Amino acid sequence: MNPNQTVEDESQPSITAMTRRIQRLSIHLTPLPLFQPSPQLNMLTCAKANKLEFDKGSLSSYMRGKYRESQEKVLEFFKSRPYLQTPIEISMNEHRELCMRQLMALVREAKIKPFRYIVEDPAKYFAIAEAVGNIDISLGIKLGVHCSLWGGSVLNLGTKKHRDKYFDGSNVQGLQTIATFDRITDEFIIDTPNDGAIKWWIGNAAVHGKFATVFAKLILTTHDSKGDSDMGVHGFIVPIRDLKTHQTLPGIEIHDCGHKIGLNGVDNGALRFCSVRIPRDNLLNRFGDVSRDGKYTSSLPTINKRFAAMLGELVGGRVGLASSSVGFLKIAVTIAVRYSLLRQQFGPPKQPEVSILDYQSHQHKLMPMLASTYAFHFATRDLVDKYSEIKKTHNEQLVGDVHALSAGLKSYVTSYTAKSLSTCREACGGHGYAAVNRLGSLRNDHDIFQTFEGDNTVLLQQVAGDLLKQYKDKFQGGPLSVTWNYLRESMNTYLSQPNPVTARWESADHLRDPKFQLDAFRYRTSRLLQSAVARLRKHSKTHGSFGAWNRCLNHLLTLAESFIESVILAKFIEAVQNCPDASSRAALKLVCDLYALDRIWNDIGTYRNVDYVAPNKAKAIHKLTEYLSFQVRNIAGELVDAFDLPPYVTRAPLAMKSEAYAQYTQLVGF
Amino acid sequence: MNPNQTVEDESQPSITAMTRRIQRLSIHLTPLPLFQPSPQLNMLTCAKANKLEFDKGSLSSYMRGKYRESQEKVLEFFKSRPYLQTPIEISMNEHRELCMRQLMALVREAKIKPFRYIVEDPAKYFAIAEAVGNIDISLGIKLGVHCSLWGGSVLNLGTKKHRDKYFDGSNVQGLQTIATFDRITDEFIIDTPNDGAIKWWIGNAAVHGKFATVFAKLILTTHDSKGDSDMGVHGFIVPIRDLKTHQTLPGIEIHDCGHKIGLNGVDNGALRFCSVRIPRDNLLNRFGDVSRDGKYTSSLPTINKRFAAMLGELVGGRVGLASSSVGFLKIAVTIAVRYSLLRQQFGPPKQPEVSILDYQSHQHKLMPMLASTYAFHFATRDLVDKYSEIKKTHNEQLVGDVHALSAGLKSYVTSYTAKSLSTCREACGGHGYAAVNRLGSLRNDHDIFQTFEGDNTVLLQQVAGDLLKQYKDKFQGGPLSVTWNYLRESMNTYLSQPNPVTARWESADHLRDPKFQLDAFRYRTSRLLQSAVARLRKHSKTHGSFGAWNRCLNHLLTLAESFIESVILAKFIEAVQNCPDASSRAALKLVCDLYALDRIWNDIGTYRNVDYVAPNKAKAIHKLTEYLSFQVRNIAGELVDAFDLPPYVTRAPLAMKSEAYAQYTQLVGF
Repeated sequence: MNPNQTVEDESQPSITAMTRRIQRLSIHLTPLPLFQPSPQLNMLTCAKANKLEFDKGSLSSYMRGKYRESQEKVLEFFKSRPYLQTPIEISMNEHRELCMRQLMALVREAKIKPFRYIVEDPAKYFAIAEAVGNIDISLGIKLGVHCSLWGGSVLNLGTKKHRDKYFDGSNVQGLQTIATFDRITDEFIIDTPNDGAIKWWIGNAAVHGKFATVFAKLILTTHDSKGDSDMGVHGFIVPIRDLKTHQTLPGIEIHDCGHKIGLNGVDNGALRFCSVRIPRDNLLNRFGDVSRDGKYTSSLPTINKRFAAMLGELVGGRVGLASSSVGFLKIAVTIAVRYSLLRQQFGPPKQPEVSILDYQSHQHKLMPMLASTYAFHFATRDLVDKYSEIKKTHNEQLVGDVHALSAGLKSYVTSYTAKSLSTCREACGGHGYAAVNRLGSLRNDHDIFQTFEGDNTVLLQQVAGDLLKQYKDKFQGGPLSVTWNYLRESMNTYLSQPNPVTARWESADHLRDPKFQLDAFRYRTSRLLQSAVARLRKHSKTHGSFGAWNRCLNHLLTLAESFIESVILAKFIEAVQNCPDASSRAALKLVCDLYALDRIWNDIGTYRNVDYVAPNKAKAIHKLTEYLSFQVRNIAGELVDAFDLPPYVTRAPLAMKSEAYAQYTQLVGF
Repeated sequence: MNPNQTVEDESQPSITAMTRRIQRLSIHLTPLPLFQPSPQLNMLTCAKANKLEFDKGSLSSYMRGKYRESQEKVLEFFKSRPYLQTPIEISMNEHRELCMRQLMALVREAKIKPFRYIVEDPAKYFAIAEAVGNIDISLGIKLGVHCSLWGGSVLNLGTKKHRDKYFDGSNVQGLQTIATFDRITDEFIIDTPNDGAIKWWIGNAAVHGKFATVFAKLILTTHDSKGDSDMGVHGFIVPIRDLKTHQTLPGIEIHDCGHKIGLNGVDNGALRFCSVRIPRDNLLNRFGDVSRDGKYTSSLPTINKRFAAMLGELVGGRVGLASSSVGFLKIAVTIAVRYSLLRQQFGPPKQPEVSILDYQSHQHKLMPMLASTYAFHFATRDLVDKYSEIKKTHNEQLVGDVHALSAGLKSYVTSYTAKSLSTCREACGGHGYAAVNRLGSLRNDHDIFQTFEGDNTVLLQQVAGDLLKQYKDKFQGGPLSVTWNYLRESMNTYLSQPNPVTARWESADHLRDPKFQLDAFRYRTSRLLQSAVARLRKHSKTHGSFGAWNRCLNHLLTLAESFIESVILAKFIEAVQNCPDASSRAALKLVCDLYALDRIWNDIGTYRNVDYVAPNKAKAIHKLTEYLSFQVRNIAGELVDAFDLPPYVTRAPLAMKSEAYAQYTQLVGF
């Protein structure tokens, strides 16, 4: 992301060698006979001559998820029902009502069964949620709050009796909230102790929710010297509105959070409980139960273990957000790339204007982003697969992996997408600012993805904490989870890697070798991890563990990001290798190289500081990155086509009647 | 902007020396007796003990613009008229009408005379425009389109007859549009030759505009072998709607651009002209005129000179945007800093939670941003002063300066502000997402500042082009403009600077020496400029000038940004030195050091690549930057107070009745 590092001096002997290598390389990349361009054309676009030809169909089918048909069914359902489409301009109250109608229609008319998918096939659920988000992100979130958060809490934390009884409601967390058991009436009494414990931003609470899952500290009378005992946080199903009259129930106070930057189809509210009584059966009792006479039983021995088990069941939301976020990034990149290919501006004297994507600066904005979109696609698909697997096998090591990976990918991907949505708007100039072209609503709706289901800065710290724990375990001979394997296998190898010889290797063959790329990523992670351990140890002596952690916080966040990047690259390299069609594989390899080298170049200061790369190698990396951007630009149209997004998702909103849209399409020639 | 570069290894002997130096330094910074904190407090906040004490009042009055009272009058006017305040939720059509009523009230009731200020005191005009933008950015832009763009074109390009006649209308540019002179009727005929020449996004065109300034190629019959001659682009006043009926006039086609991401109070439209006849007097004839018999006269010899003179008169818009953009950045930083000081989360075991601004990661997000806001404040204030001066003196060198500086600062500042508005939202978590807290509307309204009045990427290229021209002039002995002086004075000195001795100096005294900082910024600019010249020369042989420019585009953009940064730093250093109160000066020095070192650290790869700084010096810069962030955090509340923004601008929108707002204030304790 740092465009400020520039190769300044080209008058090095190595540059001509570099050019020769690149030429050689381009021949490898182009199995078809080279089209000989006119010097003129070559001058304009630099690399168009070497355009890589590949089988679009096979790349597209490699990218296509296995639930694509289900997604298309959802999109078709809304396409054929204009009265269910969200118009460009809509008031908050109308949007809330429309969103509720959309959700009801999805379940009742389109016969989508999200609760069933959550249980039987989570990957299908995430695919449906992504498609629903393409109709309106508010609808995607409303579905997620209702099904994944509320439904998921009941399904994952409750037992059969809950699954049988509830499938309609909302979601709450409020860790200062208290649930005391009243043996006389066989009820729990839920209380919000103070204003600060009011839980804000609960989706569906302001208007539509009928039930809430409330997380509260369970307090039981122990009949010993202590009197009361805190058994830790448990989930409780609390009715908040009358099922028939929809009136707020006694003891429940609901505040409307009001108008938001985006997602105004979702009615967020704040909840406060004042001695609200619920039957004992409403405790979600999978990890801990209370008997009729007030005795506590649990398969897990400590409060912390129960809390961890409970939280572990709630990672589905993060998996869904990471996956949806990539979906929105695809839409934005597709819009921006197509617009930039069509839109022409300026050009050489007395010649036609050139496509704005032919400008190096525009390639710099969009091509690494396109490469990252591919990278995130494979990484989040893998996460969804892993999540589906743990729902079936409950493999403990994999559970740990999914927990850290979902936190890491959710935060890394949503932060990246948020920035990119702004960049795409800028890349489309004034037309990007027209509401009809969606980039504004995508950004406003997606913005909060960075904050809900765990603030990104907090989640990255979880990843860092997990890495530190793994590091400690490694040296104590304990088990390492799958994704972290390389730390055990070769951390010492990585750390001993930089040497004056390889630091000077600068051929394109070397720089495009997946081993060099992955080594560089992992070296960086290993080094950051090792030095974080040393810094934390040093500071904790004088400042305690909290003070030491805070003093190393930027370092730890960088470590977490670096780690996530290495996971993403590893998955991308694997996906390139597994691609069955040779020409598609060559295209993916090009994109993967751009992803890897652009990331290395962005952190070039770090690599230079420890002499992992020599100055001329740094320059070679920069040159090659620019060259790869040119190359990817030449197939950018085909690469976004391979995302295979339906036209009414990428070209315009569903409300096609807008006059502005007609004019826009006329102008850019869609 | 690159948080990924982290000092990894603290086990260096120099670090303890560093700590000693920092301790010594903190004594210099704190002239008052040191408050001895408890070790506990020290552990939490690291630097609170060394809090710099300074006279808030004197800093505030140093920062305060001389038109502050006029600004407050505007704000008070709207505060006391709730019916003129923009509600949180408003439809596009209502917003457009409200915005028009606000503008009329501003002129008719509040007796603001923007046209007079534009002529007599541009700095006052910009101050009023900023205050008006604080009411609603749409209103600020509607005022700007009406007064600065349309009014400015008439005032600056027209002659007395125009100033006397027109003060009501709108603005258009459309460089393919043609104006031919009809000698028989003494009229110009305005024509839009094709769809592509339709000018989009003209402010006030969709609904309210009555006149438009149309830029068109003037075609005159020459009665020689050529037949017709293109005299270049000229401005024409074209009535677009009937003054009484407000009906669109014959031959004028107006399209509504529709709903936008933001600024929906401004009615943007597209205009098309079909043989529209206007009197000869409607030519804005300051730089070129047509006589009754169709003869052309001009004080300027060529089309290019006339075009440049005309464009030169239109830089006011950019000056205004740069200045307003800093105003919005101040609002957002103030909201985010105050929220982050009040909001507490987590903390050491069994102790109260700490303010989220005590987290290193949060400081990393907000403190360099706060420092940049101060830096931009002084740089744009200087630009406004320079602009006011050229309007009086027409000093040619200064005109050149203002032209490049307004392009550079507009693009640099608006890009920075756009990113920062997102960061501020994230820093305020869920509450930042509530519409009532303004960060969403600020971002959406401000977003297009990056695109209109010249796309930022295009404007930076103008700056780069200007630098290259200056460089060429230098070696040909020509004159250099004021701001570029250092290139003449000492470019060679800068380029010979890096040497193995100074590259190793790493004391805080050295790193905080303005000379070191400015040298580093200017070294980078000089080097980028020198290498750009070499690269362009090399590429232009094989690829022509257009191809060469495009191949070096990222490099040239970095050069332009680097140059603007060096101008900003120079102005900041000057402002520190000129501050009359010693304690305020110490506070400003702290902020200026953070600005300078944070920027150097962000480009550390570049400095390392050429061994301008040795590895340990790079680490020392990073450590000191983090330390300065801690220090600035300790006076962050006072620093935002010194912006002296009225409470109803920073704390909440004008519509205070919202229930959500009441709850928000309750929650965070404002």
